[in-house]
Amino acid sequence: MTDSAAKPWAGRFEQPTDAFVEAFTASVGFDHRLYRQDIAGSIAHARMLAHQGILDADECDAIVAGLTRIGERITAGDFAWSEALEDVHMNIEAALTAEVGDAGKRLHTGRSRNDQVATDIRLWLREEIDALLGGIDALVAALLDLAEREAETIMPGFTHLQVAQPITFGHHMMAWVEMLERDADRFRDCRRRLNVMPLGAAALAGTTYPIDRSFTAAALGFEHAAENSLDAVSDRDFAIEFAAAAAIAMMHLSRCSEELILWSSAQFGFIELSDAYCTGSSIMPQKKNPDVPELVRGKTGRIFGHLMGLLTLMKGQPLAYNKDNQEDKEPLFDTADNLRGALKVFADMMRHVSCNRARMRAAASQGFATATDLADYLVHRGIAFRDAHEIVGKAVAFGIRSGRDLAELSLEELRRFSPAIGEDVYSVLTLEGAVAARNHLGGTAPEQVRAAIARKRRARAETGDAGR
Amino acid sequence: MTDSAAKPWAGRFEQPTDAFVEAFTASVGFDHRLYRQDIAGSIAHARMLAHQGILDADECDAIVAGLTRIGERITAGDFAWSEALEDVHMNIEAALTAEVGDAGKRLHTGRSRNDQVATDIRLWLREEIDALLGGIDALVAALLDLAEREAETIMPGFTHLQVAQPITFGHHMMAWVEMLERDADRFRDCRRRLNVMPLGAAALAGTTYPIDRSFTAAALGFEHAAENSLDAVSDRDFAIEFAAAAAIAMMHLSRCSEELILWSSAQFGFIELSDAYCTGSSIMPQKKNPDVPELVRGKTGRIFGHLMGLLTLMKGQPLAYNKDNQEDKEPLFDTADNLRGALKVFADMMRHVSCNRARMRAAASQGFATATDLADYLVHRGIAFRDAHEIVGKAVAFGIRSGRDLAELSLEELRRFSPAIGEDVYSVLTLEGAVAARNHLGGTAPEQVRAAIARKRRARAETGDAGR
Amino acid sequence: MTDSAAKPWAGRFEQPTDAFVEAFTASVGFDHRLYRQDIAGSIAHARMLAHQGILDADECDAIVAGLTRIGERITAGDFAWSEALEDVHMNIEAALTAEVGDAGKRLHTGRSRNDQVATDIRLWLREEIDALLGGIDALVAALLDLAEREAETIMPGFTHLQVAQPITFGHHMMAWVEMLERDADRFRDCRRRLNVMPLGAAALAGTTYPIDRSFTAAALGFEHAAENSLDAVSDRDFAIEFAAAAAIAMMHLSRCSEELILWSSAQFGFIELSDAYCTGSSIMPQKKNPDVPELVRGKTGRIFGHLMGLLTLMKGQPLAYNKDNQEDKEPLFDTADNLRGALKVFADMMRHVSCNRARMRAAASQGFATATDLADYLVHRGIAFRDAHEIVGKAVAFGIRSGRDLAELSLEELRRFSPAIGEDVYSVLTLEGAVAARNHLGGTAPEQVRAAIARKRRARAETGDAGR
Amino acid sequence: MTDSAAKPWAGRFEQPTDAFVEAFTASVGFDHRLYRQDIAGSIAHARMLAHQGILDADECDAIVAGLTRIGERITAGDFAWSEALEDVHMNIEAALTAEVGDAGKRLHTGRSRNDQVATDIRLWLREEIDALLGGIDALVAALLDLAEREAETIMPGFTHLQVAQPITFGHHMMAWVEMLERDADRFRDCRRRLNVMPLGAAALAGTTYPIDRSFTAAALGFEHAAENSLDAVSDRDFAIEFAAAAAIAMMHLSRCSEELILWSSAQFGFIELSDAYCTGSSIMPQKKNPDVPELVRGKTGRIFGHLMGLLTLMKGQPLAYNKDNQEDKEPLFDTADNLRGALKVFADMMRHVSCNRARMRAAASQGFATATDLADYLVHRGIAFRDAHEIVGKAVAFGIRSGRDLAELSLEELRRFSPAIGEDVYSVLTLEGAVAARNHLGGTAPEQVRAAIARKRRARAETGDAGR
Repeated sequence: MTDSAAKPWAGRFEQPTDAFVEAFTASVGFDHRLYRQDIAGSIAHARMLAHQGILDADECDAIVAGLTRIGERITAGDFAWSEALEDVHMNIEAALTAEVGDAGKRLHTGRSRNDQVATDIRLWLREEIDALLGGIDALVAALLDLAEREAETIMPGFTHLQVAQPITFGHHMMAWVEMLERDADRFRDCRRRLNVMPLGAAALAGTTYPIDRSFTAAALGFEHAAENSLDAVSDRDFAIEFAAAAAIAMMHLSRCSEELILWSSAQFGFIELSDAYCTGSSIMPQKKNPDVPELVRGKTGRIFGHLMGLLTLMKGQPLAYNKDNQEDKEPLFDTADNLRGALKVFADMMRHVSCNRARMRAAASQGFATATDLADYLVHRGIAFRDAHEIVGKAVAFGIRSGRDLAELSLEELRRFSPAIGEDVYSVLTLEGAVAARNHLGGTAPEQVRAAIARKRRARAETGDAGR
Repeated sequence: MTDSAAKPWAGRFEQPTDAFVEAFTASVGFDHRLYRQDIAGSIAHARMLAHQGILDADECDAIVAGLTRIGERITAGDFAWSEALEDVHMNIEAALTAEVGDAGKRLHTGRSRNDQVATDIRLWLREEIDALLGGIDALVAALLDLAEREAETIMPGFTHLQVAQPITFGHHMMAWVEMLERDADRFRDCRRRLNVMPLGAAALAGTTYPIDRSFTAAALGFEHAAENSLDAVSDRDFAIEFAAAAAIAMMHLSRCSEELILWSSAQFGFIELSDAYCTGSSIMPQKKNPDVPELVRGKTGRIFGHLMGLLTLMKGQPLAYNKDNQEDKEPLFDTADNLRGALKVFADMMRHVSCNRARMRAAASQGFATATDLADYLVHRGIAFRDAHEIVGKAVAFGIRSGRDLAELSLEELRRFSPAIGEDVYSVLTLEGAVAARNHLGGTAPEQVRAAIARKRRARAETGDAGR
Repeated sequence: MTDSAAKPWAGRFEQPTDAFVEAFTASVGFDHRLYRQDIAGSIAHARMLAHQGILDADECDAIVAGLTRIGERITAGDFAWSEALEDVHMNIEAALTAEVGDAGKRLHTGRSRNDQVATDIRLWLREEIDALLGGIDALVAALLDLAEREAETIMPGFTHLQVAQPITFGHHMMAWVEMLERDADRFRDCRRRLNVMPLGAAALAGTTYPIDRSFTAAALGFEHAAENSLDAVSDRDFAIEFAAAAAIAMMHLSRCSEELILWSSAQFGFIELSDAYCTGSSIMPQKKNPDVPELVRGKTGRIFGHLMGLLTLMKGQPLAYNKDNQEDKEPLFDTADNLRGALKVFADMMRHVSCNRARMRAAASQGFATATDLADYLVHRGIAFRDAHEIVGKAVAFGIRSGRDLAELSLEELRRFSPAIGEDVYSVLTLEGAVAARNHLGGTAPEQVRAAIARKRRARAETGDAGR
Repeated sequence: MTDSAAKPWAGRFEQPTDAFVEAFTASVGFDHRLYRQDIAGSIAHARMLAHQGILDADECDAIVAGLTRIGERITAGDFAWSEALEDVHMNIEAALTAEVGDAGKRLHTGRSRNDQVATDIRLWLREEIDALLGGIDALVAALLDLAEREAETIMPGFTHLQVAQPITFGHHMMAWVEMLERDADRFRDCRRRLNVMPLGAAALAGTTYPIDRSFTAAALGFEHAAENSLDAVSDRDFAIEFAAAAAIAMMHLSRCSEELILWSSAQFGFIELSDAYCTGSSIMPQKKNPDVPELVRGKTGRIFGHLMGLLTLMKGQPLAYNKDNQEDKEPLFDTADNLRGALKVFADMMRHVSCNRARMRAAASQGFATATDLADYLVHRGIAFRDAHEIVGKAVAFGIRSGRDLAELSLEELRRFSPAIGEDVYSVLTLEGAVAARNHLGGTAPEQVRAAIARKRRARAETGDAGR
């Protein structure tokens, strides 16, 4: 990698690039990943140039054939990347010129690396978003199946990690589905906004050649060409917006992980993850650790960090392109890879969760989970909610002192707190009664959970999947 | 503020809250700002309860009248907030009970502070987004006028802060317009996603009362009710998404600020900000400092910080509501206030920018800004772009050595680098020629800038403004 | 607040400041908090000027007396802050001139607001750090007492939130002490680095007056004067370093909070927080929520955000002072206030924690917590650790299938996995045996915990407290 | 990489690890970088075990020889890392057992991967900090030489990017030196705090073997053994503190970069970077872009992001070790690599900066840079500073209107603003006079700059270098 003399911009320079600088500033070590997009963009550009008579047909054919061969060689691992050639663009262009001669040199007519790289990243990110939408879809599908299976499984619902009211496990899974659907929605918005073509902006001001940007945009599947050349080469909003959507999605997976870890603990014992998603300890023979959710929770930090890094990167830059922007790729790559991996591993793992229904039910019957139902019962008997709340509060305090839940207190004991309490109170103090009573849109009643699952499935059937 | 005994949840507690804890955990110091939304939400809830026969009509009327009076008192500054009553909700409810007696105690039927606060913030943020869209609109309007005025003003376009190619000042302003329009688009998406009603989720599981969530959603202008009660009370995606959109918008304003500061320096001298937007120095009598863009650039940091704070806040929480969530409000308030202020001050300031056209033009005539045009000229004469680039690179190196720009070299001198150069080369080396030649969608030619302005104005006329 | 004409820098300006800009750029709304430091700095500056003969003694006396009176008025709430006067410095100086006439105008000789504000913040932060060190000290003291009380209390130690090995509660508390001592250490380093005086740097280059910076530095308790004037006015390292130390400290409190919340859950039931540190629910009468640790955990996000905001703030600024820097104060104030509050509330709360020793012990006897001890037992009988690990792993799998812990298996059953196991195995399988056996520096044996407590107390006695 | 069966913890597991999970959770892809530290730690541990009689001498010798050979093989690239073996520790241990048989299995006696990895990272980071201190030292040395060469070179000092007062370029470089010295100081503090040994904490609670932690600590160059086993395995403060110190250092380099980029622009033209540190454009033949400072400025974002990621990572974890912690390594590696590279490239680049003294001087003579000196002149004639400021402000406004700097106004013109002005005023209006007059510690006078350089050199000579 020492052929500095070959630099495409060496004309006005009198000294070669310092060797360490060459390595420090080269991006080919990571941007080679964009080779497919770079070649697709170049082919579309070449065809447009030919269509506009800027290239002749033979030149165009040679370029397209040459680029195609180079793409195949790269895919096959038969391509020597050169750091002296700085980046994926120059590496491919140098190979093209070697392959097809002068026609290769004409390819860069009417474009610059500035609009080229912006195009490549957008093409790449568009594909990644599609893959992520597929990943979300698979996880949603797994959760819907699990929610259906456990639509009647009673567990304690928590606020402040204290037992609050009984809910169903299916209802809980459907809360996760809501989060994921918002994630998918955000990624779709991001995709729409990024699907605008920078090509034609050239270095920053447009080009003097009679290009046809609509031609290229159509060939590459872009909605339209970017409307301002300065903005086209300097805008990285799409990267930040993607990173923000990914950060929120990872935050969701981190919350889910937190719950899986809690529920897998001996103290909760609500679920068991499959051995296939856990690992052991090198020193403690009994350990079965929920590594997958822990790692996903841990990976959230890096995704937040990438978002912060990208915002910082762009914050103080005057227009148009500055070298700082080279730093946009690695955080994007890492964000997409980790989120994709996390979605995949979650989708698989959630298909192999065992629920310990007895433990969940037992936990729900402790902690006075039906206290709100007793208050509501009193309200139905004409007591204002705020007063009912206080009455029940005192009954709970008595229950704590005597070590019994509300349903375990005698009618006489209960009536000490309010004479409005009658024999029928015990029916509202059952878990099933409490759960079934919350029977409105969004409520935890099994009927509602099943209806929600059905709605989601219908919507998925209509759109092809949840993610698109 | 010592009436701890009045706490609405005191029933089961045996000790009062520690005094410092009461102050440390109280939120009324900042969440009182939500009073209008809280009252609007309570009125809608009361009407729904009456509509469903859970409250009788008289009670409902009393509640609505009482809340209305309380709202007026708060607006008039005639309301004593109590820290012991923790938050805006309890303060208003206590006042309501004082005002209308037992009916006030019935208002909390079928809801909880958990769904109440989530509703309040969404209502508040919806209004803020509308205000921000108005702020973006006003700034875009100012920029369109400025771009039109300076559509033919030639300045150097920069990449790497080095003179790259001549552009027009109007074109540059239109790049800012592109950024702002994406910002508006993101805020609209955020608004759509947040416009979903949590009410009815109650504490976390829904409620046992026969509520009608569609009634309340319609009354409050929500698209629909949230589909899962656990999610409804624990979701703060909208806050993070808003903060992310605001962070990107501030990043844009920071980039614009960076340019305004540069252009206002003695070394650039491209523009002059009005005295009204600058301040002086307590020690250096000659100073006129571009305080407004500097401060906006500085405020970007806090907005990024709020985004990071909110992501961190939510990251590890199990469902459903946890006290951590109380921390969601202050960063939101501060983000909205600062972004709104920055947009307003920018819109005003940009209407009073003077352009020093002579300085801009002079800067564009230095720095070999038309070197690309010379390369393109050679390409038109059949030389491959890569070869043309090298020829011009050598000519530039010669120009640097002899202290002259390309247009100042003689034909003979130029031809030393390529015999393909003819007398007609000088026309492509003029600034006007270079600018006018980039005449395609998105290019810097004045014709294109004017067309872009016209397109934006048309779109604004159709939608009422740029922001909606 | 409309007396713009009074601005100290109005000489060269022809238009007044825009009213909104005046409000948007004013800092007095928050920097008035620095009034004590500002006055102390001005008094020291005046005395130095007098000592150097730049002010005469009468002028100096008048200034000192005037500033002292102004300070008293501000403390008493008898001072009208003016936004038109921008900041705390100008407000106080204007009041001084009103109070003592021309001498007041001479005070600003040889200094600028740039070095003045940098001095004020450092003085303020120095005090805050001392207060925080006191807060850490009080919390450490509470933890040492608690650790001593529970030095023999056996609980399960967790890794991956799975039961790992038995430890003592005292040992766990001492882990928290280690974290806090590192925090104190970091704050002390930060204090040392910030205790350098900017005064004398004037606007950026120093001053032409024959000042004596050592005089002022000594008067204000600084180690020495800053060695470079440009750096002195533009450096905000101390703010970032403080924010970073605070972020780590809050991260520690967040981890402790996470554990307190877990341990307070019905499922763990290891501890009970005092009623005074919890609150209830407006809807669920039985709830007792660990609000304090939840809120502290939540507040961690804002502190992280402030750190990120400050880094972003400084990142792209050329030297020397820029208006961006005005944004340094609010995050610092908020960071110090919240960390101080969190430390105080933790110190109080930890003095009122009840341990449920029976629940902890029961939890430790489940989950095969002594499996490692069985492996070690086998190693003592000549089996390589890796082989012993596998033997015990199989025994654990058998225990899980048969629903019994290792100590509940018969000797015959145990010997099926290794004939090396003898009758004496049961002593290593007890919790007390397991804990006592980890008897080396840093181990969980009660003897070691007590020794660690004694070491810490000795060190505190020697230095006055843990924090200094 | 499919030998899951070989997992050292497989005893209690009934299903193999899912293949994707194995890849997703494996860390050997990045933590193999710790192999030297891992081997050093294992050798010290083996020797301690032998010293305590837990291993016999032959076993110890076999282990040490085996590990040494493995280290050599890894260095030589002759080692096949296995993902199924998860991490660097298991890979090396498996190789050791293959190499030396049963003795290899005994090595893990009395330790766990938890204390092992914590030890490895600390050893690695200690070395990295030493390398960074060397990098800072080299950059400081380059800056001192440059500051000395340009100690008398007059340039405009800026505040708000407006010309403020004349300073010297040497003085400006010395401001950078101050920043870097604080950075070195922070890294030294971080090194001191991290130099504490986790080994002996085992999984979390210590070990039942009669280990001697002082022996191991001394062998590995640690100050002492960690005092609490839970803390030892769960603490990652050192990583965050390192990342924070690195973030501040990168912020400094980013500010320096910002200035280098500005100064290299055609508009400033103060300096020229060597060709060796710049690159060109693929489309604009004239471009010479300051890539190195731009890239360093850009890389600041990723370092900030890593800090945020690490804080987020640790924020919510209960003790002791959780799998989340695996995510601590990549951000640390990337932070150290990028900061080290940035320091190196800066040190080299700053040795090849050309100063355009004429451009700097010309810029300083514009912008009324000596206005403060005129105000000071008036103060010396008995006018209060605040009044003098206003007089000069009006003179500046007149100068702007008439297009002349203060020194270009006639005495008669100047006296219109104050009769106190005499013929001698012109001497204070010269740049040399203004610079020389700021002649106190920290001031910009060449005499002070030279004295500061001499002080730094003396301090370096005493300590060996600036960095240690």
